[in-house]
Amino acid sequence: MDAYKTLREEAFEANMEIPRRALAIYTWGNVSAFDAGQGVFAIKPSGLAYNALTLESMVVVDLDGKVVDGKLRPSSDAKTHLVLYREFPGLGGITHTHSANAVAWAQARKSVPVYGTTHADHSPEEIPCTPIMTPEAVRNNYELETGNLIVETFHKAGKDPAAMPMVLVAGHGPFTWGKSAAQSVYHAAVLEEVCRMALLTLSLDPAAVPLPEHLIRKHWERKHGPGAYYGQQ
Amino acid sequence: MDAYKTLREEAFEANMEIPRRALAIYTWGNVSAFDAGQGVFAIKPSGLAYNALTLESMVVVDLDGKVVDGKLRPSSDAKTHLVLYREFPGLGGITHTHSANAVAWAQARKSVPVYGTTHADHSPEEIPCTPIMTPEAVRNNYELETGNLIVETFHKAGKDPAAMPMVLVAGHGPFTWGKSAAQSVYHAAVLEEVCRMALLTLSLDPAAVPLPEHLIRKHWERKHGPGAYYGQQ
Amino acid sequence: MDAYKTLREEAFEANMEIPRRALAIYTWGNVSAFDAGQGVFAIKPSGLAYNALTLESMVVVDLDGKVVDGKLRPSSDAKTHLVLYREFPGLGGITHTHSANAVAWAQARKSVPVYGTTHADHSPEEIPCTPIMTPEAVRNNYELETGNLIVETFHKAGKDPAAMPMVLVAGHGPFTWGKSAAQSVYHAAVLEEVCRMALLTLSLDPAAVPLPEHLIRKHWERKHGPGAYYGQQ
Amino acid sequence: MDAYKTLREEAFEANMEIPRRALAIYTWGNVSAFDAGQGVFAIKPSGLAYNALTLESMVVVDLDGKVVDGKLRPSSDAKTHLVLYREFPGLGGITHTHSANAVAWAQARKSVPVYGTTHADHSPEEIPCTPIMTPEAVRNNYELETGNLIVETFHKAGKDPAAMPMVLVAGHGPFTWGKSAAQSVYHAAVLEEVCRMALLTLSLDPAAVPLPEHLIRKHWERKHGPGAYYGQQ
Repeated sequence: MDAYKTLREEAFEANMEIPRRALAIYTWGNVSAFDAGQGVFAIKPSGLAYNALTLESMVVVDLDGKVVDGKLRPSSDAKTHLVLYREFPGLGGITHTHSANAVAWAQARKSVPVYGTTHADHSPEEIPCTPIMTPEAVRNNYELETGNLIVETFHKAGKDPAAMPMVLVAGHGPFTWGKSAAQSVYHAAVLEEVCRMALLTLSLDPAAVPLPEHLIRKHWERKHGPGAYYGQQ
Repeated sequence: MDAYKTLREEAFEANMEIPRRALAIYTWGNVSAFDAGQGVFAIKPSGLAYNALTLESMVVVDLDGKVVDGKLRPSSDAKTHLVLYREFPGLGGITHTHSANAVAWAQARKSVPVYGTTHADHSPEEIPCTPIMTPEAVRNNYELETGNLIVETFHKAGKDPAAMPMVLVAGHGPFTWGKSAAQSVYHAAVLEEVCRMALLTLSLDPAAVPLPEHLIRKHWERKHGPGAYYGQQ
Repeated sequence: MDAYKTLREEAFEANMEIPRRALAIYTWGNVSAFDAGQGVFAIKPSGLAYNALTLESMVVVDLDGKVVDGKLRPSSDAKTHLVLYREFPGLGGITHTHSANAVAWAQARKSVPVYGTTHADHSPEEIPCTPIMTPEAVRNNYELETGNLIVETFHKAGKDPAAMPMVLVAGHGPFTWGKSAAQSVYHAAVLEEVCRMALLTLSLDPAAVPLPEHLIRKHWERKHGPGAYYGQQ
Repeated sequence: MDAYKTLREEAFEANMEIPRRALAIYTWGNVSAFDAGQGVFAIKPSGLAYNALTLESMVVVDLDGKVVDGKLRPSSDAKTHLVLYREFPGLGGITHTHSANAVAWAQARKSVPVYGTTHADHSPEEIPCTPIMTPEAVRNNYELETGNLIVETFHKAGKDPAAMPMVLVAGHGPFTWGKSAAQSVYHAAVLEEVCRMALLTLSLDPAAVPLPEHLIRKHWERKHGPGAYYGQQ
């Protein structure tokens, strides 16, 4: 257990952010924390309510989906997480929630245009929505194929997961990631807020147009570009 | 009083979830807990605010509507509850709320289509809305006829209350049920969230289409089918 | 001061419900408590934030608008309150808020149709919205004329303030009343919730129709009719 | 440090109002407090979360943008603040947030009409939205040009910043100001509430018309005119 102590702590803390930030009710949602060196991630156990979670209840899983430590069954979405850890380089954490505004965009099966700087501060592109999964993929291995669907959506659109840490799975809801579990849940909160702002914008003007490219690049680059000057580092 | 102690506790705890989950303000809403062996249920007293509720104030009622224990008058909706306990097998609890999004669908008199997996995780079908009650039924025995209206709606549509633990009474609001009082109030919170997500989805796309059947079945069955693998059991 | 102690307490407690129920931010809103025997009411002082209110800061005003006790200036809306106490018999309290959904209906200058039983439980009629006040009335005595506008709206429509304890002042916001200050603020919370539900209903169906009369009467009368059976009395 | 103690306190307290009033999540938003005598302002450091803020972390900046006291980098928006302090006379504080309803209006690039008295109590005019910044201005000096864009918008429209303490920067979000840092954050909360009410008003009636001029003037003047009688002064 010692080997995974830090990983479990990181996963536990990030999972507890979900109810604190009101990103899901009851057991809906999960966060994992990945240790690329050991090739394992710690994730929420399946079906447990947040107020019943403990550090010890976090389940450690390897990239083949095998439980390597922990007494409980991992989240049923663990296979989606492992595909993303395998295929997207540099991830340290992944979050899945059912936050209402992000789910609404996923249910409407729409990508979220960059309507403003709140969005551009976190990604210079529209937040993609996957297509609906085929019956074959669902039959085959549903949660694993959810990961594949996300990866394909990114490959087809030529998107870089480092510059777009969010996706909407059509008819389902959001997955987000980051350099750490904490950053992945930060991105889940950002996505919910950006989706809410975009929905309110369309309610004011159904023909609202995206931010022009020069403002998108400016906001993205002052935070993430080579000459970034936002923050203290 | 000893014979009903557990039942009262179950009802009291579940009623207190209503304000905690913000499913109703003041006195609007009630939960009952049913003991099929004794043929009685414990229910919130009529018109009491949640912060005035105590374990002892819960009223025990039999399936003819007779108060068998307790000093207060039961909720005026007790007769709706007893019809559902009589007609729908296997119920352990029933919840009625006035949560705003569920009420909006009931006031618009619309069934809620399965727009996403949040819905499909809890039922594989659209959440039905009853027709408006006739003047005759209202005159006859309003609260009892509310129960009858729900039962008829399910019979006509061939719906199984075990696979659809929620209903909207047209022009009024939601009733939900479950294997226990706690599960019935869980379903009330789910219904409010699903109604909110569906309303936001339609605001993004008034022509939004339901989730295809293969995804609905998958989500329903991974939680409730014979090979269910969600959770810990 | 002794003579007004109870009245001040009633007014203070009811005013503190405004922030607790999130019916207004900062200083926006006020409640008064009326003593018909003494012909005076206690009201919130003008411009004080709720967290600065004390029992002693409540101002006692007579029906001519004269301060009879208290060191502060009364709410600038005191003259609206006194007109309603003079003209509407049986009032024990009045509440004014700027709650967002009620204000939206007032700004859209629309009466609120009875879309459901939540509304009918509190009034059997649509909640009226006044016309916009004329320039002459504004010049004359604005706050007094706000009271007159409400009274005229009720007289012209043949409405009974006992069966309709709420009004929207066009372009401004809600005033509500009741047998006590506590009941008037209860009606302010009801109005906000009913306005929110009605707005969501129209967002689902812009052609939504009101509840039929037989259901409206049933809900109104089981709570307020001669044979009322809701609650414990 | 002594010379700036009061200024830092004022800035710190006002910044902490942002999370308390839910006007921004994480680090999104900043308040500054200006000392016209010393020609300096204290502002939130860049990229720090509100729960990590301390009195000592506030950064003191002069009107050329030079840090005159403090160990951290000031908010990247400091240059926007200094332009406003230079160009708009009488300001004691400035607030920038990403509150959702104000952002929605900014993203829809719409000025907010005076739909009701809640708005008129704080300004007698529509809340202006700037045009989108040109690529040249963005390249030149983005945050400084944001200040210039606000100033130009006010000059072109002949607006007085004393009678209109709020602006929406197109595609970005709100800036507000006041006689003190505390009043500037009060105006940020007012703006969010007014934007929310206006959006709900348009959802009820897309053709809603503004409040007539005689009501706008009355509400503005009873609070801010020469014969103001609202409050205790």
